[in-house]
Amino acid sequence: MTEPRLDVLAIGNAIVDVLADADDAFLEAEGLAKGSMRLVDAHEATRLYEHMGPAREASGGSAGNTAAGVAALGGRAGFIGQIADDQLGEVFSHDIRSIGVEFETPPQDFGTPTARCLILVTPDAQRTMSTFLGAAQHLPPEALDPVQIEQSAILYLEGYLWDPEAPRMAMQQAIEIARAAKRKVAFTLSDSFCIQRHRDGFLKLIQGGFIDILFANEVEISELTGESDFEAAIRAIAGQVRTLVVTRSEKGAVALRGGERAEVAAEPVEAVVDTTGAGDLFAAGFLFGEARGRSLEESLRIGAIAAAEVISHYGARPQADLKALVAERLG
Amino acid sequence: MTEPRLDVLAIGNAIVDVLADADDAFLEAEGLAKGSMRLVDAHEATRLYEHMGPAREASGGSAGNTAAGVAALGGRAGFIGQIADDQLGEVFSHDIRSIGVEFETPPQDFGTPTARCLILVTPDAQRTMSTFLGAAQHLPPEALDPVQIEQSAILYLEGYLWDPEAPRMAMQQAIEIARAAKRKVAFTLSDSFCIQRHRDGFLKLIQGGFIDILFANEVEISELTGESDFEAAIRAIAGQVRTLVVTRSEKGAVALRGGERAEVAAEPVEAVVDTTGAGDLFAAGFLFGEARGRSLEESLRIGAIAAAEVISHYGARPQADLKALVAERLG
Repeated sequence: MTEPRLDVLAIGNAIVDVLADADDAFLEAEGLAKGSMRLVDAHEATRLYEHMGPAREASGGSAGNTAAGVAALGGRAGFIGQIADDQLGEVFSHDIRSIGVEFETPPQDFGTPTARCLILVTPDAQRTMSTFLGAAQHLPPEALDPVQIEQSAILYLEGYLWDPEAPRMAMQQAIEIARAAKRKVAFTLSDSFCIQRHRDGFLKLIQGGFIDILFANEVEISELTGESDFEAAIRAIAGQVRTLVVTRSEKGAVALRGGERAEVAAEPVEAVVDTTGAGDLFAAGFLFGEARGRSLEESLRIGAIAAAEVISHYGARPQADLKALVAERLG
Repeated sequence: MTEPRLDVLAIGNAIVDVLADADDAFLEAEGLAKGSMRLVDAHEATRLYEHMGPAREASGGSAGNTAAGVAALGGRAGFIGQIADDQLGEVFSHDIRSIGVEFETPPQDFGTPTARCLILVTPDAQRTMSTFLGAAQHLPPEALDPVQIEQSAILYLEGYLWDPEAPRMAMQQAIEIARAAKRKVAFTLSDSFCIQRHRDGFLKLIQGGFIDILFANEVEISELTGESDFEAAIRAIAGQVRTLVVTRSEKGAVALRGGERAEVAAEPVEAVVDTTGAGDLFAAGFLFGEARGRSLEESLRIGAIAAAEVISHYGARPQADLKALVAERLG
């Protein structure tokens, strides 16, 4: 096995976030469950956008944020995702490349624009998302570069990508290539509504031994297992993946690997402004630590530091120098 | 003269801002003068964008920000500006309408996309701008609705609009319509480089008695008059416009009208994050006060309050409830 060229190669929906402030009454009037992500069609995306307040745009997408986080930490990251040949596609590729991520998926015309995620940020800093997948749902298996996958220490996949058919197939092929090359496969359950849509598929991946590192939060692990008790839920899954990482918001995070268990507290944050990207950046920190041979606890700490930075400002990508932050706090 | 339907009708470049962090070394390497606004063509816009870091997008444009500010203050505002039928055009019209501004200029295909302004924000919160005017430079005089102009208490124009030919003609027509309807005409000098490009045109407007309210900052008023002494500079212009308003950053602002002179201090700000939009929001506050019959000093205070809000966060449009802020601080 040759030395990997990339630390983390992420495959995900290439999405531009459209963030607007909203209050609880607006969510209620729109029938939106706070903190959820739902998929919407072009018609609903347009309708909701018309009702939303003034917005700010910034590149996003769960796995894209993670790739950006790995690069900001000083790691070598790649991203695969489908954009259209339009202005939002340009914005997406500019942002991810300018933070240092290798992004070579060519824009293509599938008759639908670049994906966007309408994110309503409530005063409690929670985000409620309506995603129009557009071009992202057409990512074809042919967009994968097998050599790039073979050269990456960790292949990272988002559960959200399970929704549309083409990227699901691409993801399954990518897993096979990574495993054949003896690379690690990491997977995030994304969110509880996503698990409701794809529980069987996710369990098949996990029970089939395809996942080396599984990311979940408390709600997701209980949704997946049907266990409301946290310890029971993690016990049910821990034996089926090499490494299980569960984030618990302000209660920190837990990782289990074989008989080993590590826990860290949440990093202190002056003011939580917008929780968009918290899980994505936690995964970035953990994966970067993992790719660089850090201990389970150190990788959790790097995850917690990266997550704390991203929730202290608007937007789902790091703004501070994460590499310096980690060096300062962890050494 | 009938009661006006709108407090302020602004005509300006319809622009989406693309904001990225940069350091002084980057500005120097790019040969950019800190705090300036320059016009760039499509080629240079693309080249600079490729060199810039990850960015955030938000609707901007000087007069557009002012119209948004008037609406956020509880005023009735309108905006006229040219967008293309593309994603950034959609973003622009969504944002300005969702804040409550009347915006009816139809998108048109002039073979060039919606304007964007690449804004580099340095750690000292200053912004350095490179504007690609795109569709905005094609605003035709036919896009004006004479009735809308006649129904607006104040017509507000930005000096930046003097750069491209078509909007300059539109602006001159709008001034004539407003004057015939006995409405006030307000004008901002925009920035010192803009004055260098158009000193003669601006002086002709001022000396011709076409301007009721002139906005400038310290640098601009000295650039226009050639007087480095502040008092000498304002004396040189004060007699030629009904009302002269000069902002002085952290030193506050001064207004002169006939023999009257009012001064206010700058409003306190916890931390200056990004000065983009400071002058635009100051103008919004002053014009709103003026349209609602406030005293010269009160109008300056409203301007200072609106400007302080916008520099305390990223982006050039208000995020807080300006109406409530003014009620709280001014009554």
